[in-house]
Amino acid sequence: MRRFHRFVPKTARAVTLKEPLFFPDEPQKPIIKTTIPGPISKTAIEIEFDPILDTRSFVLLADYEKSLGNFIADRDGNLLLDVFAQIASIPVGYNNYNLSRAARTEQMVDAIINRPAPGNFPSYNWASIIKSGILKVAPRGLNQVFTALSGSDANETAYKAAFMYRRQQERGGRIPEFSDEELTSCMLNQAPGAPKLSILSFTSGFHGRLFGSLSTTRSKPIHKLDIPAFDWPQAKFPNLKYPLDENYQENEKEEAEAIAEVEEIIESYHVPPCAVIVEPIQSEGGDNHASPDFFRKLRTLTKKKNVLLIVDEVQTGVGSTGKFWAHEHWNLDTPPDIVTFSKKAQAAGFYYGNPDLRPCQSYRQFNTWMGDASRALLFQAIVDEIESKNLVQNTAIVGNYLYNGIDSLAKQYPKEILNLRGKGLGTFIAFDSPRRDYFLRKARSIGVNMGGCGERSLRLRPMLVFQKHHADILLSAFEDIIKS
Amino acid sequence: MRRFHRFVPKTARAVTLKEPLFFPDEPQKPIIKTTIPGPISKTAIEIEFDPILDTRSFVLLADYEKSLGNFIADRDGNLLLDVFAQIASIPVGYNNYNLSRAARTEQMVDAIINRPAPGNFPSYNWASIIKSGILKVAPRGLNQVFTALSGSDANETAYKAAFMYRRQQERGGRIPEFSDEELTSCMLNQAPGAPKLSILSFTSGFHGRLFGSLSTTRSKPIHKLDIPAFDWPQAKFPNLKYPLDENYQENEKEEAEAIAEVEEIIESYHVPPCAVIVEPIQSEGGDNHASPDFFRKLRTLTKKKNVLLIVDEVQTGVGSTGKFWAHEHWNLDTPPDIVTFSKKAQAAGFYYGNPDLRPCQSYRQFNTWMGDASRALLFQAIVDEIESKNLVQNTAIVGNYLYNGIDSLAKQYPKEILNLRGKGLGTFIAFDSPRRDYFLRKARSIGVNMGGCGERSLRLRPMLVFQKHHADILLSAFEDIIKS
Repeated sequence: MRRFHRFVPKTARAVTLKEPLFFPDEPQKPIIKTTIPGPISKTAIEIEFDPILDTRSFVLLADYEKSLGNFIADRDGNLLLDVFAQIASIPVGYNNYNLSRAARTEQMVDAIINRPAPGNFPSYNWASIIKSGILKVAPRGLNQVFTALSGSDANETAYKAAFMYRRQQERGGRIPEFSDEELTSCMLNQAPGAPKLSILSFTSGFHGRLFGSLSTTRSKPIHKLDIPAFDWPQAKFPNLKYPLDENYQENEKEEAEAIAEVEEIIESYHVPPCAVIVEPIQSEGGDNHASPDFFRKLRTLTKKKNVLLIVDEVQTGVGSTGKFWAHEHWNLDTPPDIVTFSKKAQAAGFYYGNPDLRPCQSYRQFNTWMGDASRALLFQAIVDEIESKNLVQNTAIVGNYLYNGIDSLAKQYPKEILNLRGKGLGTFIAFDSPRRDYFLRKARSIGVNMGGCGERSLRLRPMLVFQKHHADILLSAFEDIIKS
Repeated sequence: MRRFHRFVPKTARAVTLKEPLFFPDEPQKPIIKTTIPGPISKTAIEIEFDPILDTRSFVLLADYEKSLGNFIADRDGNLLLDVFAQIASIPVGYNNYNLSRAARTEQMVDAIINRPAPGNFPSYNWASIIKSGILKVAPRGLNQVFTALSGSDANETAYKAAFMYRRQQERGGRIPEFSDEELTSCMLNQAPGAPKLSILSFTSGFHGRLFGSLSTTRSKPIHKLDIPAFDWPQAKFPNLKYPLDENYQENEKEEAEAIAEVEEIIESYHVPPCAVIVEPIQSEGGDNHASPDFFRKLRTLTKKKNVLLIVDEVQTGVGSTGKFWAHEHWNLDTPPDIVTFSKKAQAAGFYYGNPDLRPCQSYRQFNTWMGDASRALLFQAIVDEIESKNLVQNTAIVGNYLYNGIDSLAKQYPKEILNLRGKGLGTFIAFDSPRRDYFLRKARSIGVNMGGCGERSLRLRPMLVFQKHHADILLSAFEDIIKS
């Protein structure tokens, strides 16, 4: 078989020549000169970094000036194909030319140096920045936005909207009249002013690491240990067998049980849920999938029970599943109530459609920065780049190519690549490996930066500019790792 | 007396000529052409903004390109002296030349377009950016930092550090060994894995609006209503009489009672506090002061009780009290355990000194973005600007001048300006007004943008480039308002 240093076989090269090259100057292949991190990086981490901050999770010391497109450079002269992309948050390649241009505009300088408190003193151009970026790609039916700073922040402000909405319904409308008991008790962190209400999430879900979002995160103990949490409920996320199309019946049963559990919790949990939050594909928790039918039933159920459906598209959104939003794969009759976004959007926040999700009084959903115009401007440029280069379509096509390539390897090495998943979902592909941590380390040592998730999964999170010739490098690397 | 259109009396002008002009092209005075918001702004807010986001808290529609130094321009051609400064978050003036230069560097472009997940893949220059900015001005004794995105985020990550530290102590050291019961229960949001521990805050304190930070915020019902909260305790913040030096004995008693209550809560509250969080001056809650002696006693008490002291310098930090950090006014024997920052730093995070505040295992205090290098670079430029122009000293001097001016007005109009406070604390000045909301509206109508806080207070939060000739404008405006 092909070896790594001949990373693109002739047949593949013939294919790649037909592709538009998104980065004409992009390196042709990884370059590995040292272990990673190498001696220069190690010294810097020890001498420069460790005295001032926690370095134990450092994977490599990057040199972003020398990174380009899908390739990340490090301080020791190594160059890696990056299919982790800053935990799935780089959308259109390192040093993307059009993003660089957007970062040099007067509007960007203004957004950086004159950062407003946009809830009080918005710039006159704030609406047009949002409309030509964040809202240009709004999920169908969700035409309004509350901007935030990160995925955690986006989810927590969405939760706040859900709680205020529920209490507003209980009060019988948008009348900003609170009882004396509410006004007094909320200041003491007690009900009814600070109500005993909850957000329902799923086992293995990840929704952030601040106190409210962490109470809905159920990924791993290391994320939750020692941090006080709200007494909020979880339902079991369906534990599906892969490939999905060969295990239809069993999976259908598993999903029906999950829906039944959600219904039971909504009806009977002692801290009533106002909203259900769910990822289209549980990412941090192991790239766990559920069928479109499951999500349609979840939408129907939440609607019936008057509980909001919050779809957390922080990792799945912005193109990598081959549609702009992963929940487009579900063909819902009615849209989710709220969709949260961050990561590849570089901006963050939540989309909503129902104007009653604006609280009945001002200053209830409010903070000083409420997002960041510089990041909204960058998202504008990202959207332009995605549209002008058809990057969602690119990801769908390259994703199929990559999936089929891994599927061939899985058939050839069934003990090494298990539970391949993500068919038809762009490059949002994952599989299990009995020696996952070795796989990750070995990949890095031969020039591929990958991420894991769950207990034994490898998740592919390439950028939207990942092309077939990059897939060939990756497939070749996989084979080398498996054989090693 | 001088009228507003002759905003600088000759005597004051003579003084101002001796000042260095931080913005040589800065407007000489406010310009008011319309009501605020004016017709152009109103139309834009209604047509452009309201369909896509909540506009009810909008004060004006700004034109930041036309704003300069201490003056904010709006879309209708009005120009206001801004002593609110984006809720106390603009440090060195609109369109500051040196910040603009920093925003145009290659390093800034890199930070904008190649945003790393710095816990995994930091840029090699991340340490030097932090050392030459964030850590260059670190509070004495606190030589390490965890970077974050906002004041709420900074406080919540500080709380997480406090909880992990407490449990680490209870386990007997930095051994990452968790019991099966902890590993299981934390995933269910239950103790002991998600422990019943708390953060103690003070009545009227404000520490942010996410779920953990909001549980410590005690400013106003509007901030807390309908949002679930942790059962965390509050102690009464001393309710001092102003001026402080004329009410020493009574205030001393009040502070002694507050300290006693903190001690009692630490000893007996059913959800034990791991940390006490306090603002040097309670800002959002009404610009409430306490004496350096109170804070020294709080430091002594928390140390004795093995409870961390978190000083929230989100609003008080970065120069406006006439020292870089407000807690420098206290002359503590030992520094606070944690100091949080945001707003005028433009960056955010928490400083700490004890390396044991890094959790015993990696990935426990972690998230994708963990701050923002572009904002850390801006803070670097802000620090340079503050140091090269002696802006902390400027603020101390101008603050005294302003305080004395308001004090004269207060003596002249004792029913209009009550409880003046902030003597010797730079421009961090506030007073009460029996017609506070009118005062704010009237100020805006004659060209001064101010902020309120608490129930009836006006807080002055000018930038660090606020000079005596600006103080003259402000004083003249106050007199006009009082006479109106």
